[in-house]
Amino acid sequence: MKIFNKTIEFKTTKYLEFVDITEEVKKFIIDNQIVNGQVLIYSPHTTLAIRVNEKEKGFTEDFKDFMTKLIPPKKYYRHNDLKIRTENLQCDLVGDTDCLNGHSHCTHFLMGASENIPIIEGKLMLGIWQWVFAIELDSARKRRVIMQIMGE
Amino acid sequence: MKIFNKTIEFKTTKYLEFVDITEEVKKFIIDNQIVNGQVLIYSPHTTLAIRVNEKEKGFTEDFKDFMTKLIPPKKYYRHNDLKIRTENLQCDLVGDTDCLNGHSHCTHFLMGASENIPIIEGKLMLGIWQWVFAIELDSARKRRVIMQIMGE
Amino acid sequence: MKIFNKTIEFKTTKYLEFVDITEEVKKFIIDNQIVNGQVLIYSPHTTLAIRVNEKEKGFTEDFKDFMTKLIPPKKYYRHNDLKIRTENLQCDLVGDTDCLNGHSHCTHFLMGASENIPIIEGKLMLGIWQWVFAIELDSARKRRVIMQIMGE
Repeated sequence: MKIFNKTIEFKTTKYLEFVDITEEVKKFIIDNQIVNGQVLIYSPHTTLAIRVNEKEKGFTEDFKDFMTKLIPPKKYYRHNDLKIRTENLQCDLVGDTDCLNGHSHCTHFLMGASENIPIIEGKLMLGIWQWVFAIELDSARKRRVIMQIMGE
Repeated sequence: MKIFNKTIEFKTTKYLEFVDITEEVKKFIIDNQIVNGQVLIYSPHTTLAIRVNEKEKGFTEDFKDFMTKLIPPKKYYRHNDLKIRTENLQCDLVGDTDCLNGHSHCTHFLMGASENIPIIEGKLMLGIWQWVFAIELDSARKRRVIMQIMGE
Repeated sequence: MKIFNKTIEFKTTKYLEFVDITEEVKKFIIDNQIVNGQVLIYSPHTTLAIRVNEKEKGFTEDFKDFMTKLIPPKKYYRHNDLKIRTENLQCDLVGDTDCLNGHSHCTHFLMGASENIPIIEGKLMLGIWQWVFAIELDSARKRRVIMQIMGE
């Protein structure tokens, strides 16, 4: 049994952008000649989700409509209220999450930080309609995703 | 450390049916005499969720009410609009997901494609009120779930 | 490749309390001198979620507001209706989940039972704003969380 790690980096461009990272995951498996095992795809950001779903433009827009209505970005959030907030106030950290993103955190709780996908006979076991997405829940920024294979 | 894979197949009968696959997961562990490790239960479908929760009929109906109201199946979804949609239009593929299921995809984003459960001293570490469910988010169809053990 | 298991126990004090278990997870990794691998953090309770997110008091309150509105604890749930319910009626089991918590179960479906986090070069790969939380979705009670490392 072996362990392989790889971090990929990219820039997102907007709220609820779906970044397709399927090819990076597949390449990582092939490069390490894994026959059997799992790949964990992990977001080290509190406002970037990892999800497996279909790649279709209409659906991406449907989901944006749904989520924007469910957790409105422009509503009042204590997390965004600098008159009362005292913690984690490093809003200018380059390349990381800003402070005023209460809606992004709420959304992340409903979507998850990672996916774990089996690899069998050298193949990532995505279904016919499955792609791997990193989904931006905040505004445009620099992001990274950690991939880890455990297998043989 | 060893890896074992098994796929189970079944037919679902309706939207938000909870298919109890707990016994299949437990049998898979016993059959392979695993003492320590994990089992990953993975849905290769974009509209079939895997979740661990209680098995109680009233609750299942409660959840159906909640989700049907939150993400109404009969609302307008671009994903269902064949006047504008151009991608992934293989609606007649036998045994796989149809096209017009915008609500199913939105729901899947909130529920997840897999669960990973520890195995300790030969026992699947489900709590006293936990069962493993495959949950149909689309209409009746043929489904499969991939189980993968890593352990010893 | 080795496997290590540890269960932590604690008491929660209220609905939607965020219990920070980050230090317990880090200590578990250090105690076992793991350099490369993963830690699975698993809740064996149907109404206790495991999530990775930011630790900031305002946000915790924001999320409580959001969730209480989305899935109101005081609404009618069949799961809470002892006139119609016949299953799993062991409401007095000390230290475990009571019966009348329909809202807690619905919430759990949206939040998940576990997180899986990579360990690389001896370090838990949490991002700069990530903490590990066990989140109480029911009222105050005794809880346990299972941690399992697979690594070397």
